[in-house]
Amino acid sequence: MRRAIYPGSFDPITNGHLDILSRALRIFDEVVLAVARNENKAPLFTQEERVALNLAAIRDLPGHERVRVGCFHGLLVDYALTEQAATIIRGLRAVSDFEFELQLALMNRKLRSDIDTIFLMPKDNYTYLSSSLVKEIARLGGDVADFVPPCAQQALQTKLRQPRP
Amino acid sequence: MRRAIYPGSFDPITNGHLDILSRALRIFDEVVLAVARNENKAPLFTQEERVALNLAAIRDLPGHERVRVGCFHGLLVDYALTEQAATIIRGLRAVSDFEFELQLALMNRKLRSDIDTIFLMPKDNYTYLSSSLVKEIARLGGDVADFVPPCAQQALQTKLRQPRP
Amino acid sequence: MRRAIYPGSFDPITNGHLDILSRALRIFDEVVLAVARNENKAPLFTQEERVALNLAAIRDLPGHERVRVGCFHGLLVDYALTEQAATIIRGLRAVSDFEFELQLALMNRKLRSDIDTIFLMPKDNYTYLSSSLVKEIARLGGDVADFVPPCAQQALQTKLRQPRP
Amino acid sequence: MRRAIYPGSFDPITNGHLDILSRALRIFDEVVLAVARNENKAPLFTQEERVALNLAAIRDLPGHERVRVGCFHGLLVDYALTEQAATIIRGLRAVSDFEFELQLALMNRKLRSDIDTIFLMPKDNYTYLSSSLVKEIARLGGDVADFVPPCAQQALQTKLRQPRP
Amino acid sequence: MRRAIYPGSFDPITNGHLDILSRALRIFDEVVLAVARNENKAPLFTQEERVALNLAAIRDLPGHERVRVGCFHGLLVDYALTEQAATIIRGLRAVSDFEFELQLALMNRKLRSDIDTIFLMPKDNYTYLSSSLVKEIARLGGDVADFVPPCAQQALQTKLRQPRP
Amino acid sequence: MRRAIYPGSFDPITNGHLDILSRALRIFDEVVLAVARNENKAPLFTQEERVALNLAAIRDLPGHERVRVGCFHGLLVDYALTEQAATIIRGLRAVSDFEFELQLALMNRKLRSDIDTIFLMPKDNYTYLSSSLVKEIARLGGDVADFVPPCAQQALQTKLRQPRP
Repeated sequence: MRRAIYPGSFDPITNGHLDILSRALRIFDEVVLAVARNENKAPLFTQEERVALNLAAIRDLPGHERVRVGCFHGLLVDYALTEQAATIIRGLRAVSDFEFELQLALMNRKLRSDIDTIFLMPKDNYTYLSSSLVKEIARLGGDVADFVPPCAQQALQTKLRQPRP
Repeated sequence: MRRAIYPGSFDPITNGHLDILSRALRIFDEVVLAVARNENKAPLFTQEERVALNLAAIRDLPGHERVRVGCFHGLLVDYALTEQAATIIRGLRAVSDFEFELQLALMNRKLRSDIDTIFLMPKDNYTYLSSSLVKEIARLGGDVADFVPPCAQQALQTKLRQPRP
Repeated sequence: MRRAIYPGSFDPITNGHLDILSRALRIFDEVVLAVARNENKAPLFTQEERVALNLAAIRDLPGHERVRVGCFHGLLVDYALTEQAATIIRGLRAVSDFEFELQLALMNRKLRSDIDTIFLMPKDNYTYLSSSLVKEIARLGGDVADFVPPCAQQALQTKLRQPRP
Repeated sequence: MRRAIYPGSFDPITNGHLDILSRALRIFDEVVLAVARNENKAPLFTQEERVALNLAAIRDLPGHERVRVGCFHGLLVDYALTEQAATIIRGLRAVSDFEFELQLALMNRKLRSDIDTIFLMPKDNYTYLSSSLVKEIARLGGDVADFVPPCAQQALQTKLRQPRP
Repeated sequence: MRRAIYPGSFDPITNGHLDILSRALRIFDEVVLAVARNENKAPLFTQEERVALNLAAIRDLPGHERVRVGCFHGLLVDYALTEQAATIIRGLRAVSDFEFELQLALMNRKLRSDIDTIFLMPKDNYTYLSSSLVKEIARLGGDVADFVPPCAQQALQTKLRQPRP
Repeated sequence: MRRAIYPGSFDPITNGHLDILSRALRIFDEVVLAVARNENKAPLFTQEERVALNLAAIRDLPGHERVRVGCFHGLLVDYALTEQAATIIRGLRAVSDFEFELQLALMNRKLRSDIDTIFLMPKDNYTYLSSSLVKEIARLGGDVADFVPPCAQQALQTKLRQPRP
């Protein structure tokens, strides 16, 4: 059984993430969608909310029965080991992505040489998509229906209407 | 009548911005210099102060009678529509600029397909210039007379002498 | 009257070129589609053939009456001057494009400071498109109908069936 | 059965290629090492020689019984289809690699949407390695024993001692 | 006497920094390891702690008697002048580094034209190394013994065990 | 005595090269301006002509008595060893430069670990300058007086008037 892990902040999950996930499911038997806690980044949604959104978002995805949504704190490679996943999946959109991802991948390889990272490309019209851009647009009152699954769209509206603590 | 919008934080306006503006005035009948509120970025100057600085900075610019200084909050494409500007102007200095700008431009095109973005290059010796670098130098006591118009230089001195709230 | 020049090898013209041209026509009163001779690059089509393909390709483009197809040998800025075009238009797809284009634009500005270059972005799903990639695919027997206008598709087939001199 | 294709010029195969191949074998059941004809690039070794070198190079690679060395002319996606490989493997070393690879991958996806490309990173000390650099060093009399498998080293010596036709 | 200055946050010093320093010592008679205050970046270690770590880290470095550890606040070029250093040394790892460093170097040259910046490359397997990545790994409980000198490793453990103010 | 080597094609030498050379002379006691044969690149000037042009170009450069013009065929690191130069100097203009230069520098370090490469930046208004662009402009009849020393300008005119063999 080939299991891969697809880690991220998913704050919130976008259609670009779902696209990468679908592609990963063609290659691997199982994919763990792993939500990082990422306290440093001051996420808009709590880790629990992000896990719930991911669960809702994949409900209609073909192959979703081979996806498990998990969450972790600590080193990604340690979590991958616990989950018996030998491959880390990352999406690549732009050159700046690429450099940072390369640095992370090399570091993770150094930390545990038996876990490898592979990169997948999202659909070309998701090139401009990022969770932060989506949040910015929602915050300014723009329509994000084309960018995120319905559950995330609703969650953004609810969250941004209420004042942040 | 061809109207373009040149949006930015302008915190504060630099000689690089003025150079791009001059070039835009050769192509368009009117250019709206649009100051974004950008609360997230914790600007040094308030939006009002930045509008005032922009007004002062363009006073001696050839063609300044065809520049209007505005300010906006919300989506740039909505503001462009209000101002009846079909073109967004952005300056390009470096590769990192380029990627972020491309992402923004594609997103804006997705949000409103009838508004396009064009990129202009500043003079080669403004390549290193950015508002943040100018603020950093002023904060450390350096001389910024070569980098910003006189009004911005004075404003930086006044602002940085007084303790930030 | 605002006239711009859109120079290139156009060997052959692609849907990406036509997309940039359409966007330029929204900003300028007239656009000169300027075919460079480019002997050094050993083009597949002669300069005359490329001019003819460009003429055929724009026939159904909205605003084509404001496009003039020209050709030049020598410095682009000299040709722009002859054509009374004060703006050079270039498409930007990727970072590698960007760097080379920046170098060219700075050099052209140095050669003639009153002519400026602006950059436009093609549609996101034309990001991967280039004349050389299209030629390569056609050469290997692939279908290029989605990438070039019908006239260029036909010309590629005819040209590649006959042995190159 | 999960089969992937790892295409390239392999002119000649380097330790960097072998490193990528080993990583691919951890993910896929079978990998087809596919030697492109690449007449345009004027390769140093003929396609037959390159196939032979690849066969010799993988002899001692763990998992080599799951590697098949093939060769193709024409579109890569067509060859992948013939080989029933749904995934294309490419190594990523640098930003310039990345952009070109992205363009190719998007084009291949456009040509056949059911075939996807994944990117793997070689070991960090193979970052500087490329077939062309290895050929250049061998041509200038340098020692390439650290960069290519023994068979390729020998072949380079033999080939470069004899005058090119 | 040729003196150079190697400025940075050094929060904390890594093996990559020490590698660059060793290379600089082959070229210059003296190198000033200059710790910037960097209040804006909210460093993990105080400037005093970072100076102390640098002193401890270089103790066993060949040529350490030609290194002086200093600290500065204000413009780097002013400090370089005080230290009579005509050359600024910076390490280059990746493209994103490169762009930012280029901008800084051009700005510093503008501020004082008699001080030049040179760039050195760390060992290839330090490409992925950065102080922030090291801090992140230590924070998540990972082992950083391969990335920083022993004194920095110990300091990270002590600092991260105690709650941040 | 600190000796560095500044290698290149110098086909022909430009003001950008001279600028880098001047900066190198502030750091090193002696600089060897090393003209590579570069048969593969089909240079416009023979190696002998390029050596002669370099000699003429540096005649009025302050510090020229500390420059030696040499030429080499074979591996750069071998030539550096012969010349007892422990440092290779390279100019950096753009990101694409950077990647290729990094690859070369890592390879050279691998070939001989006691020779290091340092990178210098030319003046900002030489960013767009390259020998190939200068040749292209001269070929098209443009004026290159601002880009190359007078001897190179004259040599370009003479060379380009006579038909290439």
